[in-house]
Amino acid sequence: LYKPIAWIITIGNELLVGRIVDTNAAWLASRLTFLGASVRRIVTVGDTVDDIVAVLRDALASSDIVVTTGGLGPTDDDITMEAVAAALNLPLVLNREALEHVSRFYSTKPAELTRERLKMALLPLGAKPIPNPVGAAPGAHVSVGRSELFVLPGVPREMKPMFDSYVADKLKPILPELCVREKSVVVKGVAEADLAPLLRRASRECVSCYVKSHPKGHEAESPLVDVRVLASAPTCEEADAMAQRVIGRLMELVGGGGGGGASSSVR
Amino acid sequence: LYKPIAWIITIGNELLVGRIVDTNAAWLASRLTFLGASVRRIVTVGDTVDDIVAVLRDALASSDIVVTTGGLGPTDDDITMEAVAAALNLPLVLNREALEHVSRFYSTKPAELTRERLKMALLPLGAKPIPNPVGAAPGAHVSVGRSELFVLPGVPREMKPMFDSYVADKLKPILPELCVREKSVVVKGVAEADLAPLLRRASRECVSCYVKSHPKGHEAESPLVDVRVLASAPTCEEADAMAQRVIGRLMELVGGGGGGGASSSVR
Repeated sequence: LYKPIAWIITIGNELLVGRIVDTNAAWLASRLTFLGASVRRIVTVGDTVDDIVAVLRDALASSDIVVTTGGLGPTDDDITMEAVAAALNLPLVLNREALEHVSRFYSTKPAELTRERLKMALLPLGAKPIPNPVGAAPGAHVSVGRSELFVLPGVPREMKPMFDSYVADKLKPILPELCVREKSVVVKGVAEADLAPLLRRASRECVSCYVKSHPKGHEAESPLVDVRVLASAPTCEEADAMAQRVIGRLMELVGGGGGGGASSSVR
Repeated sequence: LYKPIAWIITIGNELLVGRIVDTNAAWLASRLTFLGASVRRIVTVGDTVDDIVAVLRDALASSDIVVTTGGLGPTDDDITMEAVAAALNLPLVLNREALEHVSRFYSTKPAELTRERLKMALLPLGAKPIPNPVGAAPGAHVSVGRSELFVLPGVPREMKPMFDSYVADKLKPILPELCVREKSVVVKGVAEADLAPLLRRASRECVSCYVKSHPKGHEAESPLVDVRVLASAPTCEEADAMAQRVIGRLMELVGGGGGGGASSSVR
Protein backbone atom coordinates (compact mmCIF):
# COMPACT_ATOMS: atom_id res chain seq x y z
CA LEU A 1 0.00 0.00 0.00
CA TYR A 2 1.47 3.33 -1.03
CA LYS A 3 0.89 6.11 1.45
CA PRO A 4 2.07 9.67 0.87
CA ILE A 5 4.61 10.81 3.45
CA ALA A 6 3.69 13.73 5.69
CA TRP A 7 5.72 16.01 7.94
CA ILE A 8 4.15 18.22 10.57
CA ILE A 9 5.99 21.38 11.63
CA THR A 10 4.83 23.23 14.74
CA ILE A 11 6.27 26.71 15.16
CA GLY A 12 6.65 28.75 18.32
CA ASN A 13 9.11 29.51 21.11
CA GLU A 14 6.34 28.76 23.61
CA LEU A 15 6.62 25.09 22.59
CA LEU A 16 10.43 25.06 22.95
CA VAL A 17 10.28 26.49 26.47
CA GLY A 18 7.65 23.91 27.42
CA ARG A 19 4.96 26.46 28.22
CA ILE A 20 2.48 24.69 25.98
CA VAL A 21 1.91 21.00 25.29
CA ASP A 22 1.75 20.46 21.53
CA THR A 23 -1.81 19.21 21.12
CA ASN A 24 -1.93 20.55 17.53
CA ALA A 25 0.71 18.02 16.45
CA ALA A 26 -1.23 15.06 17.85
CA TRP A 27 -4.49 16.29 16.34
CA LEU A 28 -2.93 16.77 12.89
CA ALA A 29 -1.06 13.44 13.14
CA SER A 30 -4.30 11.60 13.87
CA ARG A 31 -6.20 13.36 11.08
CA LEU A 32 -3.45 12.71 8.51
CA THR A 33 -3.09 9.06 9.59
CA PHE A 34 -6.79 8.29 9.29
CA LEU A 35 -6.94 10.10 5.94
CA GLY A 36 -4.35 7.59 4.65
CA ALA A 37 -1.06 9.49 4.95
CA SER A 38 2.04 8.19 6.70
CA VAL A 39 3.29 10.80 9.17
CA ARG A 40 7.07 10.44 9.18
CA ARG A 41 8.19 13.36 11.30
CA ILE A 42 6.89 16.03 13.67
CA VAL A 43 9.33 18.92 14.16
CA THR A 44 8.94 21.80 16.57
CA VAL A 45 10.97 24.90 15.84
CA GLY A 46 11.16 28.40 17.33
CA ASP A 47 10.26 31.81 15.95
CA THR A 48 13.51 32.20 14.00
CA VAL A 49 13.47 32.56 10.22
CA ASP A 50 16.69 30.56 9.64
CA ASP A 51 15.51 27.62 11.76
CA ILE A 52 12.08 27.53 10.13
CA VAL A 53 13.67 27.72 6.67
CA ALA A 54 16.00 24.81 7.47
CA VAL A 55 13.16 22.60 8.72
CA LEU A 56 10.87 23.55 5.81
CA ARG A 57 13.56 22.61 3.27
CA ASP A 58 14.19 19.27 5.02
CA ALA A 59 10.46 18.60 5.05
CA LEU A 60 9.83 19.56 1.42
CA ALA A 61 12.78 17.42 0.30
CA SER A 62 11.47 14.31 2.04
CA SER A 63 7.70 14.37 1.92
CA ASP A 64 4.55 14.72 -0.15
CA ILE A 65 2.56 16.69 2.42
CA VAL A 66 3.84 19.36 4.81
CA VAL A 67 1.54 21.00 7.34
CA THR A 68 2.77 23.83 9.55
CA THR A 69 1.00 25.49 12.46
CA GLY A 70 1.79 28.71 14.26
CA GLY A 71 3.38 32.08 13.61
CA LEU A 72 0.65 33.72 11.47
CA GLY A 73 -0.51 36.39 13.92
CA PRO A 74 0.05 40.15 14.02
CA THR A 75 3.06 40.33 16.37
CA ASP A 76 6.71 40.75 15.39
CA ASP A 77 7.59 37.14 16.21
CA ASP A 78 4.90 35.82 13.86
CA ILE A 79 7.29 35.18 10.96
CA THR A 80 6.13 31.93 9.41
CA MET A 81 5.05 33.46 6.07
CA GLU A 82 8.38 35.27 5.79
CA ALA A 83 10.18 31.96 6.42
CA VAL A 84 8.01 30.09 3.91
CA ALA A 85 8.78 32.71 1.28
CA ALA A 86 12.50 32.48 2.07
CA ALA A 87 12.49 28.67 1.99
CA LEU A 88 10.84 28.73 -1.45
CA ASN A 89 12.88 31.70 -2.76
CA LEU A 90 9.66 33.58 -3.41
CA PRO A 91 8.87 37.20 -2.59
CA LEU A 92 6.32 37.95 0.12
CA VAL A 93 3.51 39.96 -1.48
CA LEU A 94 0.20 41.50 -0.48
CA ASN A 95 -2.27 38.85 -1.60
CA ARG A 96 -5.50 40.42 -2.89
CA GLU A 97 -7.75 37.61 -1.68
CA ALA A 98 -6.02 37.47 1.73
CA LEU A 99 -6.39 41.25 2.05
CA GLU A 100 -10.13 40.92 1.36
CA HIS A 101 -10.30 38.29 4.09
CA VAL A 102 -8.46 40.44 6.62
CA SER A 103 -10.49 43.57 5.67
CA ARG A 104 -13.76 41.70 5.92
CA PHE A 105 -12.76 40.31 9.33
CA TYR A 106 -12.17 43.80 10.72
CA SER A 107 -14.96 45.59 8.80
CA THR A 108 -17.50 45.11 11.58
CA LYS A 109 -15.02 45.73 14.39
CA PRO A 110 -13.63 48.89 15.95
CA ALA A 111 -10.13 48.20 14.61
CA GLU A 112 -7.93 49.98 12.08
CA LEU A 113 -6.01 48.18 9.31
CA THR A 114 -2.65 48.85 10.95
CA ARG A 115 0.64 47.53 9.60
CA GLU A 116 0.34 44.61 12.10
CA ARG A 117 -3.02 43.62 10.65
CA LEU A 118 -1.98 44.17 7.01
CA LYS A 119 0.96 41.82 7.66
CA MET A 120 -1.54 38.97 7.87
CA ALA A 121 -2.40 39.51 4.18
CA LEU A 122 1.22 39.04 3.05
CA LEU A 123 1.69 35.64 1.38
CA PRO A 124 4.47 34.09 -0.71
CA LEU A 125 3.92 34.94 -4.39
CA GLY A 126 1.58 32.39 -5.96
CA ALA A 127 0.31 30.95 -2.67
CA LYS A 128 -3.42 30.42 -2.28
CA PRO A 129 -4.91 31.83 0.92
CA ILE A 130 -6.70 29.28 3.12
CA PRO A 131 -9.88 30.86 4.53
CA ASN A 132 -9.95 31.23 8.30
CA PRO A 133 -13.58 30.99 9.44
CA VAL A 134 -12.76 32.10 13.00
CA GLY A 135 -9.77 34.46 13.11
CA ALA A 136 -8.12 37.27 11.19
CA ALA A 137 -5.13 35.47 9.68
CA PRO A 138 -5.65 33.36 6.54
CA GLY A 139 -3.42 30.34 5.98
CA ALA A 140 -1.53 29.55 2.79
CA HIS A 141 -1.36 26.64 0.37
CA VAL A 142 1.59 26.24 -1.98
CA SER A 143 2.36 23.37 -4.36
CA VAL A 144 6.14 22.87 -4.40
CA GLY A 145 7.42 20.22 -6.79
CA ARG A 146 5.95 16.94 -5.57
CA SER A 147 4.88 18.41 -2.22
CA GLU A 148 1.77 20.18 -1.03
CA LEU A 149 2.54 22.70 1.70
CA PHE A 150 -0.22 23.96 4.01
CA VAL A 151 0.52 26.82 6.40
CA LEU A 152 -2.03 27.05 9.23
CA PRO A 153 -2.36 29.22 12.34
CA GLY A 154 -1.49 27.88 15.80
CA VAL A 155 -4.73 28.70 17.57
CA PRO A 156 -6.50 25.29 17.67
CA ARG A 157 -10.02 26.63 17.18
CA GLU A 158 -8.82 28.30 13.93
CA MET A 159 -6.45 25.56 12.77
CA LYS A 160 -8.86 22.62 13.08
CA PRO A 161 -11.74 23.92 10.92
CA MET A 162 -9.20 25.16 8.34
CA PHE A 163 -7.70 21.68 8.12
CA ASP A 164 -11.08 19.95 7.91
CA SER A 165 -12.66 22.29 5.39
CA TYR A 166 -9.67 23.06 3.15
CA VAL A 167 -6.65 20.82 3.66
CA ALA A 168 -8.52 17.50 3.84
CA ASP A 169 -10.29 18.42 0.60
CA LYS A 170 -7.12 19.40 -1.28
CA LEU A 171 -5.41 16.20 -0.14
CA LYS A 172 -8.06 13.92 -1.59
CA PRO A 173 -6.47 13.61 -5.06
CA ILE A 174 -3.09 12.57 -3.65
CA LEU A 175 -4.33 10.24 -0.89
CA PRO A 176 -5.01 6.58 -1.64
CA GLU A 177 -8.58 5.33 -1.42
CA LEU A 178 -8.03 3.62 1.89
CA CYS A 179 -9.91 3.01 5.07
CA VAL A 180 -7.74 3.17 8.18
CA ARG A 181 -9.12 1.51 11.30
CA GLU A 182 -7.80 0.89 14.77
CA LYS A 183 -8.72 -1.92 17.16
CA SER A 184 -7.37 -2.47 20.61
CA VAL A 185 -7.30 -5.17 23.25
CA VAL A 186 -6.28 -4.87 26.89
CA VAL A 187 -4.34 -7.90 28.11
CA LYS A 188 -4.21 -8.46 31.85
CA GLY A 189 -1.81 -10.70 33.75
CA VAL A 190 0.94 -10.97 31.09
CA ALA A 191 4.00 -8.74 31.41
CA GLU A 192 4.87 -6.74 28.29
CA ALA A 193 8.17 -8.64 27.99
CA ASP A 194 6.31 -11.98 27.97
CA LEU A 195 3.73 -10.63 25.57
CA ALA A 196 6.46 -9.53 23.12
CA PRO A 197 7.05 -12.96 21.49
CA LEU A 198 3.28 -13.55 21.27
CA LEU A 199 2.81 -10.15 19.65
CA ARG A 200 5.54 -11.00 17.17
CA ARG A 201 3.66 -14.14 16.17
CA ALA A 202 0.24 -12.50 16.11
CA SER A 203 1.56 -9.65 13.95
CA ARG A 204 2.31 -12.15 11.18
CA GLU A 205 -1.46 -12.35 10.57
CA CYS A 206 -1.22 -8.87 9.02
CA VAL A 207 2.21 -7.71 7.96
CA SER A 208 0.94 -4.32 6.80
CA CYS A 209 -0.71 -3.59 10.16
CA TYR A 210 0.97 -1.42 12.75
CA VAL A 211 0.86 -3.29 16.07
CA LYS A 212 2.05 -1.69 19.29
CA SER A 213 1.84 -2.56 22.96
CA HIS A 214 1.48 0.13 25.63
CA PRO A 215 2.22 -1.02 29.19
CA LYS A 216 -0.33 0.46 31.59
CA GLY A 217 0.12 -1.46 34.84
CA HIS A 218 3.36 -2.30 36.61
CA GLU A 219 5.58 -4.75 34.70
CA ALA A 220 5.72 -8.15 36.46
CA GLU A 221 3.57 -7.14 39.45
CA SER A 222 0.17 -6.26 38.00
CA PRO A 223 0.82 -6.17 34.27
CA LEU A 224 -1.80 -4.56 32.09
CA VAL A 225 -0.93 -4.04 28.44
CA ASP A 226 -2.97 -2.07 25.93
CA VAL A 227 -2.38 -3.52 22.45
CA ARG A 228 -3.35 -1.35 19.48
CA VAL A 229 -3.64 -2.57 15.91
CA LEU A 230 -3.90 -0.06 13.06
CA ALA A 231 -4.97 -1.54 9.72
CA SER A 232 -5.34 0.04 6.29
CA ALA A 233 -7.28 -1.50 3.40
CA PRO A 234 -9.34 -0.45 0.37
CA THR A 235 -12.54 -0.99 2.37
CA CYS A 236 -13.35 -0.53 6.05
CA GLU A 237 -14.66 -4.10 6.24
CA GLU A 238 -11.26 -5.42 5.12
CA ALA A 239 -9.39 -3.09 7.49
CA ASP A 240 -11.55 -4.21 10.42
CA ALA A 241 -11.06 -7.85 9.47
CA MET A 242 -7.28 -7.47 9.21
CA ALA A 243 -7.01 -5.86 12.64
CA GLN A 244 -9.38 -8.44 14.07
CA ARG A 245 -7.22 -11.32 12.74
CA VAL A 246 -4.20 -10.00 14.68
CA ILE A 247 -6.21 -9.52 17.86
CA GLY A 248 -7.92 -12.92 17.53
CA ARG A 249 -4.59 -14.67 17.09
CA LEU A 250 -3.09 -12.75 20.04
CA MET A 251 -6.00 -13.74 22.27
CA GLU A 252 -5.55 -17.40 21.26
CA LEU A 253 -1.83 -17.20 22.11
CA VAL A 254 -2.42 -15.41 25.42
CA GLY A 255 -5.16 -17.85 26.39
CA GLY A 256 -3.01 -20.83 25.44
CA GLY A 257 -0.30 -20.37 28.06
CA GLY A 258 0.61 -16.71 28.01
CA GLY A 259 0.06 -16.42 31.75
CA GLY A 260 -2.08 -18.01 34.42
CA GLY A 261 -4.39 -15.13 35.12
CA ALA A 262 -4.38 -13.78 31.58
CA SER A 263 -7.52 -12.15 30.33
CA SER A 264 -8.27 -9.68 27.62
CA SER A 265 -11.02 -7.42 26.43
CA VAL A 266 -11.39 -6.14 22.91
CA ARG A 267 -12.48 -2.58 22.21
CA LEU B 1 24.57 35.08 27.86
CA TYR B 2 25.79 31.81 26.44
CA LYS B 3 23.30 28.97 26.73
CA PRO B 4 24.06 25.46 25.55
CA ILE B 5 21.79 24.31 22.75
CA ALA B 6 19.50 21.35 23.39
CA TRP B 7 17.52 19.08 21.09
CA ILE B 8 14.75 16.81 22.35
CA ILE B 9 13.94 13.67 20.37
CA THR B 10 10.75 11.77 21.17
CA ILE B 11 10.53 8.31 19.66
CA GLY B 12 7.46 6.20 18.92
CA ASN B 13 4.97 5.47 16.15
CA GLU B 14 2.17 6.14 18.66
CA LEU B 15 3.17 9.83 18.53
CA LEU B 16 3.22 9.90 14.71
CA VAL B 17 -0.29 8.42 14.45
CA GLY B 18 -1.53 10.96 17.00
CA ARG B 19 -2.60 8.36 19.54
CA ILE B 20 -0.65 10.12 22.28
CA VAL B 21 -0.08 13.82 22.97
CA ASP B 22 3.63 14.39 23.54
CA THR B 23 3.64 15.60 27.14
CA ASN B 24 7.22 14.32 27.63
CA ALA B 25 8.54 16.88 25.14
CA ALA B 26 6.90 19.81 26.96
CA TRP B 27 8.08 18.55 30.35
CA LEU B 28 11.67 18.14 29.16
CA ALA B 29 11.58 21.48 27.32
CA SER B 30 10.48 23.27 30.48
CA ARG B 31 13.09 21.52 32.64
CA LEU B 32 15.92 22.25 30.19
CA THR B 33 14.83 25.88 29.76
CA PHE B 34 14.73 26.60 33.49
CA LEU B 35 18.08 24.82 33.96
CA GLY B 36 19.58 27.38 31.57
CA ALA B 37 19.68 25.52 28.24
CA SER B 38 18.25 26.85 24.99
CA VAL B 39 15.96 24.24 23.44
CA ARG B 40 16.35 24.65 19.68
CA ARG B 41 14.39 21.71 18.31
CA ILE B 42 11.93 19.00 19.32
CA VAL B 43 11.75 16.15 16.81
CA THR B 44 9.35 13.23 16.90
CA VAL B 45 10.33 10.16 14.91
CA GLY B 46 8.92 6.64 14.54
CA ASP B 47 10.25 3.23 15.53
CA THR B 48 12.53 2.93 12.50
CA VAL B 49 16.29 2.61 12.93
CA ASP B 50 17.18 4.64 9.82
CA ASP B 51 14.90 7.54 10.79
CA ILE B 52 16.16 7.62 14.39
CA VAL B 53 19.78 7.49 13.17
CA ALA B 54 19.18 10.42 10.81
CA VAL B 55 17.61 12.57 13.53
CA LEU B 56 20.29 11.64 16.11
CA ARG B 57 23.07 12.63 13.71
CA ASP B 58 21.36 15.96 12.95
CA ALA B 59 20.92 16.59 16.66
CA LEU B 60 24.47 15.66 17.64
CA ALA B 61 25.88 17.85 14.86
CA SER B 62 23.95 20.91 16.01
CA SER B 63 23.69 20.83 19.79
CA ASP B 64 25.41 20.45 23.14
CA ILE B 65 22.66 18.43 24.81
CA VAL B 66 20.47 15.75 23.26
CA VAL B 67 17.73 14.04 25.26
CA THR B 68 15.71 11.20 23.75
CA THR B 69 12.65 9.47 25.19
CA GLY B 70 10.99 6.23 24.17
CA GLY B 71 11.86 2.89 22.62
CA LEU B 72 13.71 1.25 25.52
CA GLY B 73 11.21 -1.46 26.39
CA PRO B 74 11.20 -5.20 25.77
CA THR B 75 9.20 -5.39 22.54
CA ASP B 76 10.55 -5.73 19.00
CA ASP B 77 9.78 -2.13 18.09
CA ASP B 78 11.83 -0.82 21.02
CA ILE B 79 14.93 -0.11 18.97
CA THR B 80 16.30 3.16 20.32
CA MET B 81 19.53 1.65 21.74
CA GLU B 82 20.17 -0.11 18.44
CA ALA B 83 19.70 3.21 16.62
CA VAL B 84 21.95 5.10 19.06
CA ALA B 85 24.69 2.50 18.56
CA ALA B 86 24.29 2.75 14.77
CA ALA B 87 24.31 6.58 14.83
CA LEU B 88 27.56 6.53 16.84
CA ASN B 89 29.13 3.63 14.91
CA LEU B 90 29.44 1.69 18.17
CA PRO B 91 28.60 -1.95 18.80
CA LEU B 92 25.63 -2.76 21.04
CA VAL B 93 26.95 -4.81 23.97
CA LEU B 94 25.62 -6.40 27.15
CA ASN B 95 26.46 -3.77 29.76
CA ARG B 96 27.41 -5.37 33.10
CA GLU B 97 25.93 -2.61 35.23
CA ALA B 98 22.74 -2.48 33.17
CA LEU B 99 22.43 -6.26 33.43
CA GLU B 100 22.71 -6.01 37.22
CA HIS B 101 19.93 -3.40 37.16
CA VAL B 102 17.66 -5.55 35.01
CA SER B 103 18.43 -8.70 37.08
CA ARG B 104 17.80 -6.88 40.35
CA PHE B 105 14.50 -5.51 39.01
CA TYR B 106 13.24 -9.01 38.21
CA SER B 107 14.87 -10.83 41.18
CA THR B 108 11.83 -10.40 43.42
CA LYS B 109 9.31 -11.02 40.65
CA PRO B 110 7.97 -14.19 39.03
CA ALA B 111 9.67 -13.42 35.72
CA GLU B 112 12.44 -15.15 33.77
CA LEU B 113 15.35 -13.28 32.19
CA THR B 114 14.08 -13.94 28.67
CA ARG B 115 15.76 -12.54 25.56
CA GLU B 116 13.21 -9.68 25.62
CA ARG B 117 14.29 -8.72 29.15
CA LEU B 118 18.02 -9.18 28.48
CA LYS B 119 17.64 -6.81 25.53
CA MET B 120 17.12 -3.99 28.03
CA ALA B 121 20.70 -4.49 29.26
CA LEU B 122 22.18 -3.95 25.77
CA LEU B 123 23.86 -0.52 25.53
CA PRO B 124 26.21 1.09 23.02
CA LEU B 125 29.83 0.27 23.95
CA GLY B 126 31.11 2.79 26.48
CA ALA B 127 27.69 4.18 27.41
CA LYS B 128 26.90 4.65 31.10
CA PRO B 129 23.58 3.19 32.21
CA ILE B 130 21.17 5.68 33.79
CA PRO B 131 19.45 4.05 36.77
CA ASN B 132 15.68 3.64 36.44
CA PRO B 133 14.15 3.82 39.94
CA VAL B 134 10.73 2.66 38.73
CA GLY B 135 10.97 0.33 35.72
CA ALA B 136 13.09 -2.42 34.25
CA ALA B 137 14.89 -0.56 31.46
CA PRO B 138 17.93 1.58 32.33
CA GLY B 139 18.69 4.63 30.22
CA ALA B 140 22.05 5.48 28.68
CA HIS B 141 24.42 8.43 28.81
CA VAL B 142 27.07 8.90 26.12
CA SER B 143 29.49 11.81 25.63
CA VAL B 144 29.90 12.36 21.90
CA GLY B 145 32.39 15.05 20.92
CA ARG B 146 30.99 18.30 22.29
CA SER B 147 27.57 16.78 22.97
CA GLU B 148 26.06 14.96 25.92
CA LEU B 149 23.47 12.40 24.84
CA PHE B 150 20.89 11.10 27.31
CA VAL B 151 18.64 8.21 26.31
CA LEU B 152 15.55 7.93 28.52
CA PRO B 153 12.45 5.70 28.49
CA GLY B 154 9.10 7.00 27.28
CA VAL B 155 6.99 6.12 30.31
CA PRO B 156 6.65 9.50 32.08
CA ARG B 157 6.81 8.11 35.63
CA GLU B 158 10.16 6.50 34.75
CA MET B 159 11.54 9.29 32.56
CA LYS B 160 10.92 12.19 34.97
CA PRO B 161 12.80 10.88 38.04
CA MET B 162 15.65 9.72 35.78
CA PHE B 163 15.97 13.21 34.36
CA ASP B 164 15.79 14.91 37.75
CA SER B 165 18.18 12.58 39.56
CA TYR B 166 20.73 11.86 36.83
CA VAL B 167 20.52 14.15 33.79
CA ALA B 168 20.11 17.44 35.69
CA ASP B 169 23.15 16.52 37.78
CA LYS B 170 25.36 15.62 34.79
CA LEU B 171 24.36 18.83 33.01
CA LYS B 172 25.50 21.10 35.84
CA PRO B 173 29.11 21.45 34.60
CA ILE B 174 28.04 22.52 31.11
CA LEU B 175 25.15 24.79 32.09
CA PRO B 176 25.74 28.47 32.90
CA GLU B 177 25.11 29.65 36.46
CA LEU B 178 21.87 31.32 35.56
CA CYS B 179 18.51 31.85 37.10
CA VAL B 180 15.65 31.68 34.60
CA ARG B 181 12.37 33.28 35.67
CA GLU B 182 9.05 33.89 33.98
CA LYS B 183 6.55 36.64 34.70
CA SER B 184 3.25 37.19 32.97
CA VAL B 185 0.60 39.82 32.67
CA VAL B 186 -2.90 39.51 31.28
CA VAL B 187 -3.95 42.55 29.26
CA LYS B 188 -7.68 43.07 28.73
CA GLY B 189 -9.32 45.33 26.20
CA VAL B 190 -6.41 45.67 23.74
CA ALA B 191 -6.38 43.48 20.63
CA GLU B 192 -3.14 41.53 20.05
CA ALA B 193 -2.53 43.48 16.84
CA ASP B 194 -2.77 46.79 18.72
CA LEU B 195 -0.63 45.44 21.54
CA ALA B 196 2.13 44.42 19.09
CA PRO B 197 3.77 47.87 18.69
CA LEU B 198 3.56 48.42 22.48
CA LEU B 199 5.17 45.01 23.08
CA ARG B 200 7.92 45.93 20.64
CA ARG B 201 8.67 49.06 22.67
CA ALA B 202 8.40 47.38 26.07
CA SER B 203 10.73 44.57 24.92
CA ARG B 204 13.53 47.12 24.50
CA GLU B 205 13.71 47.27 28.31
CA CYS B 206 15.33 43.83 28.20
CA VAL B 207 16.77 42.73 24.87
CA SER B 208 17.84 39.32 26.22
CA CYS B 209 14.34 38.53 27.50
CA TYR B 210 11.98 36.36 25.53
CA VAL B 211 8.64 38.17 25.31
CA LYS B 212 5.59 36.56 23.76
CA SER B 213 1.90 37.36 23.60
CA HIS B 214 -0.75 34.64 23.62
CA PRO B 215 -4.23 35.74 22.53
CA LYS B 216 -6.86 34.19 24.78
CA GLY B 217 -10.06 36.09 24.05
CA HIS B 218 -11.51 36.96 20.63
CA GLU B 219 -9.43 39.45 18.65
CA ALA B 220 -11.23 42.82 18.39
CA GLU B 221 -14.43 41.76 20.19
CA SER B 222 -13.28 40.85 23.70
CA PRO B 223 -9.50 40.83 23.44
CA LEU B 224 -7.58 39.18 26.28
CA VAL B 225 -3.87 38.73 25.79
CA ASP B 226 -1.56 36.77 28.05
CA VAL B 227 1.95 38.26 27.84
CA ARG B 228 4.84 36.12 29.11
CA VAL B 229 8.34 37.39 29.78
CA LEU B 230 11.17 34.92 30.32
CA ALA B 231 14.34 36.43 31.76
CA SER B 232 17.75 34.87 32.46
CA ALA B 233 20.38 36.43 34.72
CA PRO B 234 23.18 35.40 37.07
CA THR B 235 20.84 35.85 40.05
CA CYS B 236 17.11 35.33 40.46
CA GLU B 237 16.71 38.88 41.78
CA GLU B 238 18.19 40.26 38.56
CA ALA B 239 16.06 37.94 36.40
CA ASP B 240 12.92 39.00 38.26
CA ALA B 241 13.85 42.66 37.92
CA MET B 242 14.53 42.33 34.18
CA ALA B 243 11.16 40.67 33.55
CA GLN B 244 9.45 43.23 35.76
CA ARG B 245 10.96 46.12 33.80
CA VAL B 246 9.38 44.83 30.58
CA ILE B 247 6.01 44.29 32.24
CA GLY B 248 6.11 47.64 34.01
CA ARG B 249 6.85 49.46 30.77
CA LEU B 250 4.12 47.53 28.94
CA MET B 251 1.56 48.44 31.62
CA GLU B 252 2.56 52.10 31.32
CA LEU B 253 2.12 51.95 27.54
CA VAL B 254 -1.20 50.13 27.76
CA GLY B 255 -2.49 52.51 30.42
CA GLY B 256 -1.35 55.49 28.42
CA GLY B 257 -3.66 55.12 25.44
CA GLY B 258 -3.48 51.47 24.46
CA GLY B 259 -7.25 51.13 24.61
CA GLY B 260 -10.15 52.63 26.45
CA GLY B 261 -11.06 49.68 28.65
CA ALA B 262 -7.53 48.38 29.02
CA SER B 263 -6.59 46.73 32.28
CA SER B 264 -3.93 44.29 33.25
CA SER B 265 -3.01 41.99 36.07
CA VAL B 266 0.49 40.73 36.80
CA ARG B 267 1.11 37.14 37.90
